[in-house]
Amino acid sequence: MKEYCGIFGIYDNPNAAYYTYLGLYALQHRGQESAGIAVTDGKRITYYRDFGLVSSVFKSDSLKKLTGHTAIGHNRYSTSGASDSPDNIQPIVVSYKYGQLAIAHNGNLVNALELREKLEEEGSIFRGTTDSEVIVHLIVKSRKKKFLEKLIDALSKLKGAYSLLVMTNKKLIAARDPWGFRPLCMGELNGSPVFASETCAFDLIGARYIRDVEPGEIVVVENGKVSSLRLPGSEKCKKSQCIFEFIYFARPDSRIFGKSVYEVRKEFGRILAREYPVEADLVIPVPDSGVVPALGYSQESGIPFEMGLIRNHYVGRTFIKPEQKMRDIGVKVKLNPIPELLKGKRIVVIDDSIVRGTTSRKIIRMLREAGAKEVHMRISSPPTKWPCYFGIDTPTRDQLIASSYSVEEICKFIEADSLGYLSLEGMLEATCGSREEFCTACFDGKYPVDVPERIVEQSKKK
Amino acid sequence: MKEYCGIFGIYDNPNAAYYTYLGLYALQHRGQESAGIAVTDGKRITYYRDFGLVSSVFKSDSLKKLTGHTAIGHNRYSTSGASDSPDNIQPIVVSYKYGQLAIAHNGNLVNALELREKLEEEGSIFRGTTDSEVIVHLIVKSRKKKFLEKLIDALSKLKGAYSLLVMTNKKLIAARDPWGFRPLCMGELNGSPVFASETCAFDLIGARYIRDVEPGEIVVVENGKVSSLRLPGSEKCKKSQCIFEFIYFARPDSRIFGKSVYEVRKEFGRILAREYPVEADLVIPVPDSGVVPALGYSQESGIPFEMGLIRNHYVGRTFIKPEQKMRDIGVKVKLNPIPELLKGKRIVVIDDSIVRGTTSRKIIRMLREAGAKEVHMRISSPPTKWPCYFGIDTPTRDQLIASSYSVEEICKFIEADSLGYLSLEGMLEATCGSREEFCTACFDGKYPVDVPERIVEQSKKK
Amino acid sequence: MKEYCGIFGIYDNPNAAYYTYLGLYALQHRGQESAGIAVTDGKRITYYRDFGLVSSVFKSDSLKKLTGHTAIGHNRYSTSGASDSPDNIQPIVVSYKYGQLAIAHNGNLVNALELREKLEEEGSIFRGTTDSEVIVHLIVKSRKKKFLEKLIDALSKLKGAYSLLVMTNKKLIAARDPWGFRPLCMGELNGSPVFASETCAFDLIGARYIRDVEPGEIVVVENGKVSSLRLPGSEKCKKSQCIFEFIYFARPDSRIFGKSVYEVRKEFGRILAREYPVEADLVIPVPDSGVVPALGYSQESGIPFEMGLIRNHYVGRTFIKPEQKMRDIGVKVKLNPIPELLKGKRIVVIDDSIVRGTTSRKIIRMLREAGAKEVHMRISSPPTKWPCYFGIDTPTRDQLIASSYSVEEICKFIEADSLGYLSLEGMLEATCGSREEFCTACFDGKYPVDVPERIVEQSKKK
Amino acid sequence: MKEYCGIFGIYDNPNAAYYTYLGLYALQHRGQESAGIAVTDGKRITYYRDFGLVSSVFKSDSLKKLTGHTAIGHNRYSTSGASDSPDNIQPIVVSYKYGQLAIAHNGNLVNALELREKLEEEGSIFRGTTDSEVIVHLIVKSRKKKFLEKLIDALSKLKGAYSLLVMTNKKLIAARDPWGFRPLCMGELNGSPVFASETCAFDLIGARYIRDVEPGEIVVVENGKVSSLRLPGSEKCKKSQCIFEFIYFARPDSRIFGKSVYEVRKEFGRILAREYPVEADLVIPVPDSGVVPALGYSQESGIPFEMGLIRNHYVGRTFIKPEQKMRDIGVKVKLNPIPELLKGKRIVVIDDSIVRGTTSRKIIRMLREAGAKEVHMRISSPPTKWPCYFGIDTPTRDQLIASSYSVEEICKFIEADSLGYLSLEGMLEATCGSREEFCTACFDGKYPVDVPERIVEQSKKK
Ligand SMILES: Nc1ncnc2c1ncn2[C@@H]1O[C@H](COP(=O)(O)OP(=O)(O)O)[C@@H](O)[C@H]1O
Ligand SMILES: Nc1ncnc2c1ncn2[C@@H]1O[C@H](COP(=O)(O)OP(=O)(O)O)[C@@H](O)[C@H]1O
Ligand SMILES: Nc1ncnc2c1ncn2[C@@H]1O[C@H](COP(=O)(O)OP(=O)(O)O)[C@@H](O)[C@H]1O
Ligand SMILES: Nc1ncnc2c1ncn2[C@@H]1O[C@H](COP(=O)(O)OP(=O)(O)O)[C@@H](O)[C@H]1O
Ligand code: SF4
Ligand code: SF4
Ligand code: SF4
Ligand code: SF4
Ligand SMILES: [Mg+2]
Ligand SMILES: [Mg+2]
Ligand SMILES: [Mg+2]
Ligand SMILES: [Mg+2]
Repeated sequence: MKEYCGIFGIYDNPNAAYYTYLGLYALQHRGQESAGIAVTDGKRITYYRDFGLVSSVFKSDSLKKLTGHTAIGHNRYSTSGASDSPDNIQPIVVSYKYGQLAIAHNGNLVNALELREKLEEEGSIFRGTTDSEVIVHLIVKSRKKKFLEKLIDALSKLKGAYSLLVMTNKKLIAARDPWGFRPLCMGELNGSPVFASETCAFDLIGARYIRDVEPGEIVVVENGKVSSLRLPGSEKCKKSQCIFEFIYFARPDSRIFGKSVYEVRKEFGRILAREYPVEADLVIPVPDSGVVPALGYSQESGIPFEMGLIRNHYVGRTFIKPEQKMRDIGVKVKLNPIPELLKGKRIVVIDDSIVRGTTSRKIIRMLREAGAKEVHMRISSPPTKWPCYFGIDTPTRDQLIASSYSVEEICKFIEADSLGYLSLEGMLEATCGSREEFCTACFDGKYPVDVPERIVEQSKKK
Repeated sequence: MKEYCGIFGIYDNPNAAYYTYLGLYALQHRGQESAGIAVTDGKRITYYRDFGLVSSVFKSDSLKKLTGHTAIGHNRYSTSGASDSPDNIQPIVVSYKYGQLAIAHNGNLVNALELREKLEEEGSIFRGTTDSEVIVHLIVKSRKKKFLEKLIDALSKLKGAYSLLVMTNKKLIAARDPWGFRPLCMGELNGSPVFASETCAFDLIGARYIRDVEPGEIVVVENGKVSSLRLPGSEKCKKSQCIFEFIYFARPDSRIFGKSVYEVRKEFGRILAREYPVEADLVIPVPDSGVVPALGYSQESGIPFEMGLIRNHYVGRTFIKPEQKMRDIGVKVKLNPIPELLKGKRIVVIDDSIVRGTTSRKIIRMLREAGAKEVHMRISSPPTKWPCYFGIDTPTRDQLIASSYSVEEICKFIEADSLGYLSLEGMLEATCGSREEFCTACFDGKYPVDVPERIVEQSKKK
Repeated sequence: MKEYCGIFGIYDNPNAAYYTYLGLYALQHRGQESAGIAVTDGKRITYYRDFGLVSSVFKSDSLKKLTGHTAIGHNRYSTSGASDSPDNIQPIVVSYKYGQLAIAHNGNLVNALELREKLEEEGSIFRGTTDSEVIVHLIVKSRKKKFLEKLIDALSKLKGAYSLLVMTNKKLIAARDPWGFRPLCMGELNGSPVFASETCAFDLIGARYIRDVEPGEIVVVENGKVSSLRLPGSEKCKKSQCIFEFIYFARPDSRIFGKSVYEVRKEFGRILAREYPVEADLVIPVPDSGVVPALGYSQESGIPFEMGLIRNHYVGRTFIKPEQKMRDIGVKVKLNPIPELLKGKRIVVIDDSIVRGTTSRKIIRMLREAGAKEVHMRISSPPTKWPCYFGIDTPTRDQLIASSYSVEEICKFIEADSLGYLSLEGMLEATCGSREEFCTACFDGKYPVDVPERIVEQSKKK
Repeated sequence: MKEYCGIFGIYDNPNAAYYTYLGLYALQHRGQESAGIAVTDGKRITYYRDFGLVSSVFKSDSLKKLTGHTAIGHNRYSTSGASDSPDNIQPIVVSYKYGQLAIAHNGNLVNALELREKLEEEGSIFRGTTDSEVIVHLIVKSRKKKFLEKLIDALSKLKGAYSLLVMTNKKLIAARDPWGFRPLCMGELNGSPVFASETCAFDLIGARYIRDVEPGEIVVVENGKVSSLRLPGSEKCKKSQCIFEFIYFARPDSRIFGKSVYEVRKEFGRILAREYPVEADLVIPVPDSGVVPALGYSQESGIPFEMGLIRNHYVGRTFIKPEQKMRDIGVKVKLNPIPELLKGKRIVVIDDSIVRGTTSRKIIRMLREAGAKEVHMRISSPPTKWPCYFGIDTPTRDQLIASSYSVEEICKFIEADSLGYLSLEGMLEATCGSREEFCTACFDGKYPVDVPERIVEQSKKK
């Protein structure tokens, strides 16, 4: 039910569908399971969606059929894989009393289940299992008169993370939850308003970044005009932008939450170098997530940076696993060391985080086999101790090694010579922000929104 | 929006999905656009659906994943083709307050639009455009307590044609509209109740035909027990079984409405021979629909029967049309005459009906080119003058040649030497029934259910 | 290695590829495993081939790329199925000393293995396992100067069945083996010479049938001119057209060997009725091969003809077989009886041949279960006792029930009330020919060409 | 006709096909157009090949059918794309006099055309257009007695580049041309000899690298024994290993020609820094080929390294190009700059080579738009002035900017502030080798093998 996603929208542009295709293409890293585009010509919304990468879902033919001037698109990541239902692919397009409605959603609501039950109680019917369908129902069910009022009515009921694009035959609306968990950027292309999860989508299409949609803000584009309003009550919510977007999820060439991901990541590395210095010969990243913090660590420490681990470019879903009787291929499908670099060297290896610890252990063993004399692991975030309920797919507490073990114990488990995690303060310092701006719940357990007990329980069973 | 369809259901059988696959395979002629199966193991409904023939939608793999003991399936025909939305493929599976619900529907409601609007008024949301989704909403929206009451409540609101299979995690329910437009048969396989549009599905799986689900009847299978009830008010509805199922739609080896399609069709031919005798040398059918009535005509008239037109077995959707500059391939892709048979002969050619008249003209021309001296067309049904609103895809009035032209004029148009249509009385006589049992609206315009003006208008625009 | 096939060729026509597509479409019954078209624009031969039906191999796109004015095409049937090598799909296109060469071949050579060994001995390399590749090598290896001489040289070495289309960048050549085993027809479309295995291909494209390519004849089309020559030595070969083409293989609406398949088949039925009359109530065919002889039997005997068995239209390769624990679906996937017709009746059931006897037994059991009182089997050919080595896929002797059992014993095995096979004389009479014109080896073992012992042995092992 | 390729072979291993799959997976960067595996069980060679990436060509099913203990595989890159013939996909498998033969070939022969003509003259037939087919013919045509002698006979006739794996039902043979253009490594996995284009394939399967197959060496594995011999006359050929493999083609984590690609590439960067120093603030690579030399440049110059250009991970063949009316997407689909890094900075940007200069110009413009104050281009190889005829796909001379323009002019064309190419001496120094070891023809035009005039002409017309 976790929803990593990339969303993109464009208003009133003759190449709406194609630009949305490009936008999704640039946001592919946010979701590789399915892709979809809905487009309106002002009278009718048509759409095309399927499982697969953007480039395999959309062919020249299917794209050409999506005629219209306003479009939204969605990339989806899902943990449940191919067994998942096509009814979950977004954008969701429905028709209801006042016409058609398309919605693309990135995030995870903590009260989705509750809302869903209430809606079902009142007669709502669900096709799939996404939170996004709940939002659609809330909008449609609202007793308010105008569409915008309905939307506000619906959003007011939501608790948790949502960056949202809503399209009718006349309007394009972008909304971000009051806490601002997920990013949502606003730009402009030849006068057409555009929206995207990350600015890298703007870069590809040559759009100009204007500003972020603010937490709790609703931006409405209609009749060629852009207006903005605040979700009532949103001012009471603590700004809680997901700091993990900086650590891992976003593309390094994007700006999110007003900052360059690259710069923040490098600063993580610099501070980490100050917090956990070590005598060593080389700094190497676990690519790709470790590359930028490793550059920071190297620059701060003066220890030379090398690409000591090479990542296979073709790693994907479709790899045929070896038979059990064969030796373990393990992490080697993804990463291969350069023994000539490592032989006899003291290595600092940088990754963005440790989840279960098993991959880190494999990497460290691989480095030693390739000749490394010492392996010092440095992590560009604090220990991940708590699951996320706001749209990042983390395992349950008991699977998170850091929630049960001390740093020392983890160091032993992963067989490192030393282990250093970036401190919470260091992390916040790097973002030039403070706890007031960011969610850090996966590190400190301080969830900005109350997580219902049953959600906690449920997530344990996944 | 017209829905030709085949439906199949089986209760409590270890091979539920496979038998449903076979059932749909036997019912393939009722719908070639999409196929789907939903199955329950008592706890969860899973499903698989896609565009294509049964044999291409289901592969060993996908079928094996459909584990459970009770299943329903659906074949769909649609006029809108590949451009159609995947949200329309059946069975529709939803979850709502009391759990999951799957539905497979054959038929066409005349008040679907009205109901849909009312539902939308009350906040319902629609994904696709099928009538079936309306039924799901009505069930779920019902204020009644028990599921069965809800279903009855919903069905009471429907006007038009439906043969319905409804599956929950505990129940399998079969229902047929009070008029009984579409067929629905009930059988038994090793103690498992089975349902199918036509008995040919029973034959393939080796099930025993028991009886038809009656017009207005609801058959409930639960806890291994079969019970039956009547939809309140259904007794007021005039039995109106679609006589066109006999004429064209059903497979000749099926029994529907309690009668053998083959026998009825042959009787059509016999009576036609008495009503429109002609001096001729050969009786030939337009295969496949004309084969059985042609046998009847031949036997009654004593004129020898020959397969003077051969039908290509591989005719399907994917044929590449010739460029415009090339000569017309026309009806030849489908049919090829045997000149050796026809040369110098007086031919009676039998088809089931004439729609626009253009195909008949092409066939007659082809027969003459192949050497026929005289061509006498005989049609095993009365002139089709009125569109159907109950689930058969007929064109609008102005496209039906018989609604604007006399038989004589049609004869001239199709360039036949003579033309004879089976009389309405003859047709009813052949079914051993009477107007009291059958819908004959496409011939006499006496629609058993009032068709709202807007539906009439709308159908003109398709 | 058996090669049922359909071949088609057209010379100098602006729509060469499309007409070849149509031609193959009409010849689809001769081979459903793969399809291919090669086309030349006078300078270069391009081609497209794949596994599958004509309609699925060729899409608008791939067809459009086949530009050129002269084309040949091939449908292939193979017993080895999907596991077969793509290197076997025809037309085979090669380049050699004098340019490019494309070949499409229907038939089976008895000395292919021997020739192949000799060629390999001399350094030839084979990609696939087809006889056709042997022919290509022989042409290319010939020491003769001119292409036509090379071809003659090659053909002179062949023993067995071949109907052949050969295309170079300048020429289209059609050749038929001296015995004339397989059919090959010649026609004309707007001045363009066309060739096809059966005339039904001409009918579809509107071409005019001119005459058959004669046994031992080589028809050369070049520079817009058609010329003909005889393969030297071919006059010594006994004309041996495959009578099984009439019995089973060809389409009933085709003319082959100068005769209408339909007429010959009906005559088989008539004579059968005279040879093996029986008191009965109905004549029914095993469709489709039994239909036309059943009409003949019915007309001659006066016993009414009925379509008492209905054949599923969607029977194909991709059917998912039931698990072993389930009851046998058997012949029911293909055929379904009409009990209303059969009940209490004495039935004559007509099929074209009996191979192993197991299918016939299943059909007869099915007819009895459907109520038939007596079942009299009549076969429109003599007992099949010998395997074919000339391009029809028959099993080995020990699998052919008629080679080990008497008619009486077969009758008992298939559980018929009586069994009658058309006599050899009757069969020949129906073709208005004589043993002098036809191969009848599968009935009498008199192979027109000596079959090497090893071929006999080898075929036992398949 | 150019053949970039990756080849892999393994002898006598229970998981031969799966390891070959893995090997090809690791070598995917050497060819993305098609993939194939041939395997022998000692009696029969079976194979599977198709267009596409290794991971999409091979599914669990198709891999499982490839049973046998010895296997070879091939990845192919081709310039002609999807329009290319399936007859060109490798491994090529043929049968000939002494049985079956499979071959996988990386390289490009300069006398292929000539040999082909001679072979055709003698009666050889070609299916496809690859040089590899020529080799097969030469082997088979050889008059020598033993297979190995035949192979030697064939190889003796070849001029140009080949790294070759040949498999019969009994043997696995690896051979490398006397000049040693393309790499070919030898290793061992649990006693099974393995061969691969690059060592990264060994790393993935956990095999141990033993040594390179030497230029002119033929390694024969048979009856579990490995033996080696030298191609007679090969000693006269100047060792000419393709230096471009180091510059661009090989994976950085591979060893080829006995050296670590990573180390050589970094040394390129170091020397480049000494040869063309510049005052600057940042060194950034054009990823991925520029990454390692940029690290070298940075380390040598002391100018900080940054990933100032981010490469989209999903760049592939299937991208839908924008309509012409839309603005140029250009290089942005592939690369996106980090403006925060670049703003106001003096940048050294490192790439491996310049072909036409247009991409470099786009990159430089993009960097300036992102705020770079100065852009100094440094290339980790000398100017590419001459086309390659040995298996690397370079354009013709007139398209190579460096063959017509001076460095100064190129600098102006690409709009750089300065431009520096690694010197030929510097390049050779980095490989610790000398001109005696490497081919450097694309830089100095000194082709180690005479290139026939017609090949030069022909390559101009591509
Ligand atoms: N085009 C790109 N170039 C470099 N880094 C990228 C790109 N796209 C996504 N990323 C980064 O890659 C990282 C994701 O992956 P990575 O570490 O390679 O995979 P894994 O999830 O297997 O650890 C994220 O940190 C993301 O920011
Ligand atoms: N397996 C079958 N054998 C014989 N007739 C069949 C079979 N399946 C369906 N039919 C009949 O075929 C007819 C449908 O088609 P036909 O006349 O061939 O096509 P069209 O719709 O193109 O006129 C119907 O009358 C139907 O009853
Ligand atoms: N379009 C057609 N219409 C009628 N018969 C056909 C057609 N195409 C092929 N045939 C005939 O169908 C017969 C083939 O099959 P059939 O008896 O149906 O199948 P099987 O091989 O399973 O017994 C052949 O006798 C052939 O002549
Ligand atoms: N897994 C990998 N990691 C890093 N570099 C790689 C990998 N695989 C191949 N390469 C290198 O990538 C380079 C190829 O590409 P690149 O520069 O990204 O593309 P382009 O050909 O478009 O310039 C080569 O230098 C090759 O050595
Ligand atoms: S819990 Fe962690 S991953 Fe989730 S939103 Fe908060 S910071 Fe992001
Ligand atoms: S109108 Fe005609 S086709 Fe429609 S239900 Fe009535 S009889 Fe059947
Ligand atoms: S043996 Fe029989 S099937 Fe074969 S060619 Fe002769 S008649 Fe035809
Ligand atoms: S010419 Fe250049 S690319 Fe070609 S082999 Fe020589 S060094 Fe390599
Ligand atoms: Mg990572
Ligand atoms: Mg019809
Ligand atoms: Mg048959
Ligand atoms: Mg590059």
